[in-house]
Amino acid sequence: MNNTKNIVVLVSGGGTNLQALIDAQSRGELGNGKITCVVSSKADAYALVRAKESGIKSRTLIRKDYDDIASYSRAMRDILLEEKADLVVYAGFMTILDESVCDAFPNKMINVHPALIPSFCGKGYYGLHVHEEALKKGVKISGATVHFITAECDAGPIILQKSVEVMENDTPETLQKRIMEQAEWKILPKAVQLFCDEKIVVENGKTYIK
Amino acid sequence: MNNTKNIVVLVSGGGTNLQALIDAQSRGELGNGKITCVVSSKADAYALVRAKESGIKSRTLIRKDYDDIASYSRAMRDILLEEKADLVVYAGFMTILDESVCDAFPNKMINVHPALIPSFCGKGYYGLHVHEEALKKGVKISGATVHFITAECDAGPIILQKSVEVMENDTPETLQKRIMEQAEWKILPKAVQLFCDEKIVVENGKTYIK
Repeated sequence: MNNTKNIVVLVSGGGTNLQALIDAQSRGELGNGKITCVVSSKADAYALVRAKESGIKSRTLIRKDYDDIASYSRAMRDILLEEKADLVVYAGFMTILDESVCDAFPNKMINVHPALIPSFCGKGYYGLHVHEEALKKGVKISGATVHFITAECDAGPIILQKSVEVMENDTPETLQKRIMEQAEWKILPKAVQLFCDEKIVVENGKTYIK
Repeated sequence: MNNTKNIVVLVSGGGTNLQALIDAQSRGELGNGKITCVVSSKADAYALVRAKESGIKSRTLIRKDYDDIASYSRAMRDILLEEKADLVVYAGFMTILDESVCDAFPNKMINVHPALIPSFCGKGYYGLHVHEEALKKGVKISGATVHFITAECDAGPIILQKSVEVMENDTPETLQKRIMEQAEWKILPKAVQLFCDEKIVVENGKTYIK
Protein backbone atom coordinates (compact mmCIF):
# COMPACT_ATOMS: atom_id res chain seq x y z
CA MET A 1 0.00 0.00 0.00
CA ASN A 2 1.28 3.41 -0.87
CA ASN A 3 -0.64 5.52 1.60
CA THR A 4 1.98 5.76 4.32
CA LYS A 5 1.04 8.23 7.06
CA ASN A 6 3.69 10.56 8.39
CA ILE A 7 3.68 10.49 12.17
CA VAL A 8 5.23 13.44 13.98
CA VAL A 9 5.83 12.88 17.69
CA LEU A 10 6.00 15.81 20.11
CA VAL A 11 8.13 15.32 23.21
CA SER A 12 9.48 17.24 26.20
CA GLY A 13 11.22 14.70 28.36
CA GLY A 14 12.41 11.12 28.69
CA GLY A 15 10.40 9.88 25.75
CA THR A 16 9.28 6.49 27.05
CA ASN A 17 6.04 6.78 25.09
CA LEU A 18 8.10 7.67 22.00
CA GLN A 19 10.13 4.52 22.68
CA ALA A 20 6.94 2.46 22.85
CA LEU A 21 6.03 3.83 19.41
CA ILE A 22 9.51 3.15 18.01
CA ASP A 23 9.37 -0.41 19.36
CA ALA A 24 5.90 -0.95 17.90
CA GLN A 25 7.16 0.35 14.57
CA SER A 26 10.10 -2.05 14.56
CA ARG A 27 7.66 -4.90 15.22
CA GLY A 28 5.57 -3.71 12.25
CA GLU A 29 2.72 -2.68 14.53
CA LEU A 30 2.06 0.89 13.42
CA GLY A 31 0.07 -0.20 10.38
CA ASN A 32 0.57 2.23 7.53
CA GLY A 33 2.22 4.74 9.84
CA LYS A 34 5.85 5.79 9.92
CA ILE A 35 7.48 8.05 12.52
CA THR A 36 9.04 10.68 10.29
CA CYS A 37 9.98 13.36 12.81
CA VAL A 38 10.29 14.01 16.54
CA VAL A 39 9.88 17.59 17.78
CA SER A 40 11.02 18.50 21.29
CA SER A 41 10.06 21.55 23.32
CA LYS A 42 13.25 21.14 25.34
CA ALA A 43 16.80 21.00 24.06
CA ASP A 44 17.94 18.39 26.59
CA ALA A 45 15.02 15.98 26.29
CA TYR A 46 16.30 12.41 26.38
CA ALA A 47 13.66 11.64 23.77
CA LEU A 48 15.98 13.33 21.27
CA VAL A 49 18.63 10.70 22.00
CA ARG A 50 16.07 7.96 21.43
CA ALA A 51 15.12 9.48 18.08
CA LYS A 52 18.75 9.71 17.01
CA GLU A 53 19.49 6.13 18.05
CA SER A 54 16.59 4.97 15.92
CA GLY A 55 17.61 7.07 12.95
CA ILE A 56 14.56 9.31 13.19
CA LYS A 57 14.85 12.97 12.22
CA SER A 58 14.39 15.34 15.10
CA ARG A 59 13.86 19.06 15.55
CA THR A 60 13.60 21.32 18.55
CA LEU A 61 11.17 24.13 19.07
CA ILE A 62 12.13 25.55 22.43
CA ARG A 63 9.19 26.81 24.41
CA LYS A 64 11.15 29.45 26.30
CA ASP A 65 12.32 31.04 23.05
CA TYR A 66 8.74 32.24 22.56
CA ASP A 67 6.94 34.96 24.46
CA ASP A 68 3.54 33.32 24.54
CA ILE A 69 1.55 30.22 23.69
CA ALA A 70 0.07 31.87 20.60
CA SER A 71 3.41 32.53 18.89
CA TYR A 72 4.79 29.14 19.96
CA SER A 73 1.67 27.43 18.64
CA ARG A 74 1.95 29.15 15.27
CA ALA A 75 5.59 28.12 14.98
CA MET A 76 4.67 24.54 15.85
CA ARG A 77 1.84 24.53 13.33
CA ASP A 78 4.29 25.65 10.65
CA ILE A 79 6.72 22.86 11.53
CA LEU A 80 3.96 20.27 11.42
CA LEU A 81 2.81 21.52 8.03
CA GLU A 82 6.39 21.54 6.76
CA GLU A 83 6.80 17.96 7.94
CA LYS A 84 3.57 17.02 6.18
CA ALA A 85 2.28 15.40 9.35
CA ASP A 86 -0.70 13.09 8.83
CA LEU A 87 -0.80 12.35 12.54
CA VAL A 88 0.62 14.34 15.45
CA VAL A 89 1.24 12.40 18.68
CA TYR A 90 1.80 14.06 22.04
CA ALA A 91 4.15 11.72 23.89
CA GLY A 92 4.90 13.38 27.17
CA PHE A 93 4.71 16.77 25.47
CA MET A 94 4.28 19.27 28.28
CA THR A 95 2.97 22.35 26.48
CA ILE A 96 -0.67 23.01 25.69
CA LEU A 97 -0.89 24.41 22.17
CA ASP A 98 -3.70 26.73 21.18
CA GLU A 99 -6.44 26.26 18.61
CA SER A 100 -4.25 27.43 15.72
CA VAL A 101 -2.66 23.96 15.82
CA CYS A 102 -5.84 21.95 16.54
CA ASP A 103 -7.65 23.80 13.75
CA ALA A 104 -4.90 22.93 11.26
CA PHE A 105 -5.00 19.24 12.28
CA PRO A 106 -8.59 18.43 13.21
CA ASN A 107 -8.90 14.89 14.55
CA LYS A 108 -5.29 14.33 13.54
CA MET A 109 -3.62 14.98 16.88
CA ILE A 110 -3.68 12.47 19.72
CA ASN A 111 -2.55 12.47 23.31
CA VAL A 112 -2.16 9.83 25.98
CA HIS A 113 -3.39 10.88 29.41
CA PRO A 114 -2.38 8.85 32.48
CA ALA A 115 -5.87 8.40 33.96
CA LEU A 116 -9.33 7.22 32.95
CA ILE A 117 -10.85 10.42 31.57
CA PRO A 118 -13.05 12.10 32.83
CA SER A 119 -11.30 11.30 36.12
CA PHE A 120 -8.21 13.33 37.01
CA CYS A 121 -7.98 15.36 33.85
CA GLY A 122 -8.24 18.93 32.64
CA LYS A 123 -6.06 21.92 33.27
CA GLY A 124 -3.32 21.35 35.81
CA TYR A 125 -3.48 17.56 35.59
CA TYR A 126 -0.31 16.29 34.03
CA GLY A 127 2.62 14.07 34.93
CA LEU A 128 3.01 12.87 38.49
CA HIS A 129 0.31 15.23 39.77
CA VAL A 130 -2.36 13.07 38.10
CA HIS A 131 -1.23 10.08 40.14
CA GLU A 132 -0.90 12.12 43.33
CA GLU A 133 -4.53 13.15 42.98
CA ALA A 134 -5.67 9.60 42.21
CA LEU A 135 -3.91 8.32 45.33
CA LYS A 136 -5.28 11.19 47.41
CA LYS A 137 -8.80 10.27 46.31
CA GLY A 138 -8.09 6.63 47.16
CA VAL A 139 -9.28 5.12 43.88
CA LYS A 140 -8.71 1.40 43.45
CA ILE A 141 -8.69 1.55 39.64
CA SER A 142 -6.94 4.07 37.43
CA GLY A 143 -5.57 3.70 33.90
CA ALA A 144 -4.82 5.61 30.74
CA THR A 145 -6.72 7.24 27.89
CA VAL A 146 -5.74 7.99 24.31
CA HIS A 147 -7.86 10.78 22.89
CA PHE A 148 -7.97 13.26 20.05
CA ILE A 149 -6.76 16.71 20.99
CA THR A 150 -9.18 19.59 20.77
CA ALA A 151 -8.78 23.16 21.97
CA GLU A 152 -10.34 22.15 25.31
CA CYS A 153 -7.77 20.37 27.48
CA ASP A 154 -8.29 16.57 27.77
CA ALA A 155 -11.83 16.85 26.39
CA GLY A 156 -11.47 15.49 22.85
CA PRO A 157 -13.00 12.24 21.61
CA ILE A 158 -11.70 9.20 23.48
CA ILE A 159 -10.08 6.54 21.27
CA LEU A 160 -8.90 3.86 23.70
CA GLN A 161 -8.81 3.39 27.46
CA LYS A 162 -7.24 0.73 29.65
CA SER A 163 -7.73 0.25 33.36
CA VAL A 164 -4.95 -0.50 35.83
CA GLU A 165 -5.20 -1.57 39.46
CA VAL A 166 -3.98 0.79 42.16
CA MET A 167 -2.05 -0.94 44.95
CA GLU A 168 -2.30 0.01 48.61
CA ASN A 169 1.36 0.85 48.96
CA ASP A 170 1.58 2.81 45.70
CA THR A 171 3.45 6.08 45.54
CA PRO A 172 2.79 8.47 42.64
CA GLU A 173 5.98 7.07 41.10
CA THR A 174 5.06 3.37 41.33
CA LEU A 175 1.54 4.06 40.07
CA GLN A 176 2.92 6.11 37.19
CA LYS A 177 5.27 3.28 36.25
CA ARG A 178 2.55 0.63 36.33
CA ILE A 179 0.16 2.75 34.28
CA MET A 180 2.87 3.41 31.70
CA GLU A 181 3.82 -0.25 31.42
CA GLN A 182 0.36 -1.78 31.55
CA ALA A 183 -1.64 0.86 29.73
CA GLU A 184 0.09 3.80 28.01
CA TRP A 185 2.71 1.78 26.15
CA LYS A 186 0.00 -0.56 24.91
CA ILE A 187 -2.87 1.70 23.93
CA LEU A 188 -0.84 4.54 22.42
CA PRO A 189 0.79 2.40 19.68
CA LYS A 190 -2.53 0.60 19.17
CA ALA A 191 -4.38 3.88 18.67
CA VAL A 192 -1.67 5.06 16.26
CA GLN A 193 -2.04 1.84 14.29
CA LEU A 194 -5.82 2.19 14.14
CA PHE A 195 -5.49 5.79 12.99
CA CYS A 196 -2.89 5.03 10.33
CA ASP A 197 -5.01 2.17 9.00
CA GLU A 198 -7.97 4.58 8.84
CA LYS A 199 -10.04 2.51 11.25
CA ILE A 200 -11.16 5.36 13.50
CA VAL A 201 -14.40 7.18 12.78
CA VAL A 202 -15.32 10.29 14.77
CA GLU A 203 -19.00 11.13 15.05
CA ASN A 204 -20.64 13.59 17.44
CA GLY A 205 -17.58 13.76 19.64
CA LYS A 206 -17.26 9.99 19.98
CA THR A 207 -15.03 7.50 18.22
CA TYR A 208 -15.97 4.21 16.63
CA ILE A 209 -13.52 1.58 15.42
CA LYS A 210 -14.28 0.15 11.97
CA MET B 1 -17.56 -16.84 66.14
CA ASN B 2 -20.22 -14.99 68.01
CA ASN B 3 -19.79 -11.51 66.59
CA THR B 4 -22.43 -11.64 63.87
CA LYS B 5 -23.00 -8.27 62.21
CA ASN B 6 -26.55 -7.18 61.51
CA ILE B 7 -26.85 -5.98 57.93
CA VAL B 8 -29.76 -3.70 57.08
CA VAL B 9 -30.33 -3.20 53.36
CA LEU B 10 -32.10 -0.09 52.06
CA VAL B 11 -33.99 -0.46 48.79
CA SER B 12 -36.36 1.45 46.53
CA GLY B 13 -36.86 -0.73 43.48
CA GLY B 14 -36.23 -4.09 41.89
CA GLY B 15 -33.64 -5.13 44.40
CA THR B 16 -31.15 -6.90 42.14
CA ASN B 17 -28.29 -5.80 44.36
CA LEU B 18 -30.24 -7.08 47.37
CA GLN B 19 -30.57 -10.39 45.52
CA ALA B 20 -26.80 -10.47 44.94
CA LEU B 21 -26.36 -10.08 48.71
CA ILE B 22 -28.96 -12.75 49.48
CA ASP B 23 -27.26 -15.14 47.03
CA ALA B 24 -23.85 -14.42 48.53
CA GLN B 25 -25.28 -15.07 51.99
CA SER B 26 -26.70 -18.42 50.92
CA ARG B 27 -23.27 -19.35 49.55
CA GLY B 28 -21.76 -18.40 52.91
CA GLU B 29 -19.94 -15.44 51.40
CA LEU B 30 -20.96 -12.60 53.70
CA GLY B 31 -18.44 -13.55 56.35
CA ASN B 32 -19.77 -12.75 59.81
CA GLY B 33 -22.64 -10.74 58.32
CA LYS B 34 -26.32 -11.58 58.27
CA ILE B 35 -29.04 -9.65 56.45
CA THR B 36 -31.46 -9.00 59.29
CA CYS B 37 -33.78 -6.42 57.75
CA VAL B 38 -34.70 -4.79 54.43
CA VAL B 39 -36.14 -1.26 54.51
CA SER B 40 -37.89 0.09 51.43
CA SER B 41 -38.68 3.72 50.62
CA LYS B 42 -41.45 2.53 48.31
CA ALA B 43 -44.38 0.29 49.14
CA ASP B 44 -44.36 -1.51 45.80
CA ALA B 45 -40.60 -2.18 45.53
CA TYR B 46 -40.05 -5.67 44.14
CA ALA B 47 -37.14 -5.91 46.56
CA LEU B 48 -39.75 -6.47 49.27
CA VAL B 49 -40.90 -9.64 47.47
CA ARG B 50 -37.30 -10.84 47.32
CA ALA B 51 -36.91 -10.26 51.05
CA LYS B 52 -40.10 -12.16 51.80
CA GLU B 53 -39.13 -15.10 49.56
CA SER B 54 -35.84 -15.36 51.43
CA GLY B 55 -37.47 -15.12 54.84
CA ILE B 56 -35.89 -11.77 55.62
CA LYS B 57 -37.79 -9.26 57.73
CA SER B 58 -38.79 -6.14 55.85
CA ARG B 59 -40.13 -2.73 56.71
CA THR B 60 -41.25 0.24 54.70
CA LEU B 61 -40.49 3.86 55.37
CA ILE B 62 -42.31 5.68 52.61
CA ARG B 63 -40.53 8.78 51.43
CA LYS B 64 -43.65 10.62 50.39
CA ASP B 65 -45.15 10.26 53.85
CA TYR B 66 -42.55 12.77 55.03
CA ASP B 67 -42.43 16.47 54.31
CA ASP B 68 -38.70 16.79 53.99
CA ILE B 69 -35.39 14.93 53.92
CA ALA B 70 -34.62 15.93 57.51
CA SER B 71 -37.69 14.31 59.04
CA TYR B 72 -37.39 11.27 56.77
CA SER B 73 -33.71 10.92 57.72
CA ARG B 74 -34.49 11.06 61.44
CA ALA B 75 -37.16 8.39 61.04
CA MET B 76 -34.72 6.20 59.09
CA ARG B 77 -32.03 6.70 61.71
CA ASP B 78 -34.46 5.55 64.38
CA ILE B 79 -35.34 2.41 62.42
CA LEU B 80 -31.66 1.59 61.88
CA LEU B 81 -30.97 2.04 65.59
CA GLU B 82 -34.01 -0.10 66.47
CA GLU B 83 -32.77 -2.81 64.12
CA LYS B 84 -29.33 -2.62 65.74
CA ALA B 85 -27.69 -2.26 62.34
CA ASP B 86 -23.96 -2.87 62.31
CA LEU B 87 -23.84 -2.20 58.59
CA VAL B 88 -26.28 -0.29 56.41
CA VAL B 89 -26.19 -1.07 52.69
CA TYR B 90 -27.76 1.14 50.03
CA ALA B 91 -28.88 -1.27 47.32
CA GLY B 92 -30.63 0.82 44.73
CA PHE B 93 -31.92 3.10 47.46
CA MET B 94 -32.99 6.28 45.70
CA THR B 95 -33.13 8.80 48.54
CA ILE B 96 -30.21 10.80 49.83
CA LEU B 97 -30.36 10.87 53.61
CA ASP B 98 -28.91 13.76 55.56
CA GLU B 99 -26.07 13.81 58.06
CA SER B 100 -28.27 12.75 60.98
CA VAL B 101 -28.00 9.22 59.58
CA CYS B 102 -24.34 9.35 58.49
CA ASP B 103 -23.39 10.76 61.89
CA ALA B 104 -25.16 7.91 63.69
CA PHE B 105 -23.41 5.31 61.52
CA PRO B 106 -19.98 6.67 60.71
CA ASN B 107 -18.13 4.39 58.28
CA LYS B 108 -20.94 1.88 58.73
CA MET B 109 -23.00 2.74 55.66
CA ILE B 110 -21.99 1.66 52.17
CA ASN B 111 -23.31 2.33 48.70
CA VAL B 112 -22.61 0.90 45.27
CA HIS B 113 -22.35 3.49 42.51
CA PRO B 114 -22.53 2.38 38.88
CA ALA B 115 -19.39 4.17 37.64
CA LEU B 116 -15.72 4.52 38.49
CA ILE B 117 -15.78 7.38 40.99
CA PRO B 118 -14.76 10.24 40.57
CA SER B 119 -16.21 9.84 37.06
CA PHE B 120 -19.96 10.32 36.64
CA CYS B 121 -20.86 10.79 40.27
CA GLY B 122 -22.23 13.41 42.60
CA LYS B 123 -25.61 15.02 42.83
CA GLY B 124 -27.97 14.11 40.00
CA TYR B 125 -25.99 11.04 38.97
CA TYR B 126 -28.04 7.97 39.72
CA GLY B 127 -29.60 5.07 37.88
CA LEU B 128 -29.68 5.10 34.09
CA HIS B 129 -28.56 8.73 33.94
CA VAL B 130 -25.05 7.69 35.01
CA HIS B 131 -24.81 5.40 31.98
CA GLU B 132 -26.35 7.97 29.64
CA GLU B 133 -23.62 10.41 30.64
CA ALA B 134 -20.87 7.81 30.28
CA LEU B 135 -22.07 6.99 26.76
CA LYS B 136 -22.42 10.66 25.90
CA LYS B 137 -18.81 11.22 26.94
CA GLY B 138 -17.78 8.21 24.88
CA VAL B 139 -15.72 6.45 27.54
CA LYS B 140 -14.41 2.99 26.63
CA ILE B 141 -14.18 1.85 30.25
CA SER B 142 -16.71 2.31 33.03
CA GLY B 143 -17.42 0.19 36.08
CA ALA B 144 -18.71 0.33 39.63
CA THR B 145 -17.56 1.60 43.00
CA VAL B 146 -18.47 0.54 46.53
CA HIS B 147 -17.81 3.35 48.99
CA PHE B 148 -18.65 4.46 52.49
CA ILE B 149 -21.43 7.01 52.65
CA THR B 150 -20.67 10.43 54.05
CA ALA B 151 -22.83 13.55 54.08
CA GLU B 152 -21.29 14.59 50.74
CA CYS B 153 -22.87 12.63 47.88
CA ASP B 154 -20.62 9.88 46.39
CA ALA B 155 -17.55 11.34 48.10
CA GLY B 156 -16.89 8.88 50.93
CA PRO B 157 -13.89 6.54 51.13
CA ILE B 158 -13.76 4.08 48.23
CA ILE B 159 -13.71 0.43 49.28
CA LEU B 160 -13.68 -1.52 46.00
CA GLN B 161 -13.87 -0.69 42.30
CA LYS B 162 -14.15 -2.86 39.23
CA SER B 163 -13.83 -1.78 35.62
CA VAL B 164 -16.13 -2.90 32.82
CA GLU B 165 -15.73 -2.42 29.06
CA VAL B 166 -18.15 -0.18 27.23
CA MET B 167 -19.27 -1.57 23.85
CA GLU B 168 -19.82 0.57 20.77
CA ASN B 169 -23.46 -0.37 20.39
CA ASP B 170 -24.29 0.02 24.08
CA THR B 171 -27.47 1.73 25.17
CA PRO B 172 -27.78 3.02 28.75
CA GLU B 173 -29.76 -0.15 29.45
CA THR B 174 -27.21 -2.64 28.07
CA LEU B 175 -24.36 -0.83 29.80
CA GLN B 176 -26.28 -0.79 33.07
CA LYS B 177 -26.91 -4.53 32.79
CA ARG B 178 -23.26 -5.36 32.05
CA ILE B 179 -22.01 -3.19 34.91
CA MET B 180 -24.48 -4.81 37.30
CA GLU B 181 -23.54 -8.33 36.26
CA GLN B 182 -19.79 -7.89 35.94
CA ALA B 183 -19.14 -5.39 38.70
CA GLU B 184 -21.89 -4.39 41.15
CA TRP B 185 -23.07 -7.90 41.98
CA LYS B 186 -19.47 -8.94 42.60
CA ILE B 187 -17.95 -6.06 44.52
CA LEU B 188 -20.95 -5.23 46.72
CA PRO B 189 -21.11 -8.66 48.42
CA LYS B 190 -17.30 -8.72 48.58
CA ALA B 191 -17.21 -5.33 50.33
CA VAL B 192 -19.93 -6.47 52.76
CA GLN B 193 -17.90 -9.58 53.55
CA LEU B 194 -14.74 -7.54 54.13
CA PHE B 195 -16.65 -5.15 56.40
CA CYS B 196 -18.31 -7.91 58.41
CA ASP B 197 -15.00 -9.67 58.87
CA GLU B 198 -13.54 -6.35 60.10
CA LYS B 199 -10.96 -6.27 57.33
CA ILE B 200 -11.53 -2.64 56.27
CA VAL B 201 -9.49 0.13 57.83
CA VAL B 202 -10.36 3.78 57.11
CA GLU B 203 -7.56 6.31 57.44
CA ASN B 204 -7.49 9.88 56.17
CA GLY B 205 -10.44 9.32 53.90
CA LYS B 206 -8.96 6.21 52.29
CA THR B 207 -9.57 2.53 52.90
CA TYR B 208 -7.05 -0.24 53.39
CA ILE B 209 -7.83 -3.95 53.41
CA LYS B 210 -6.20 -5.90 56.22
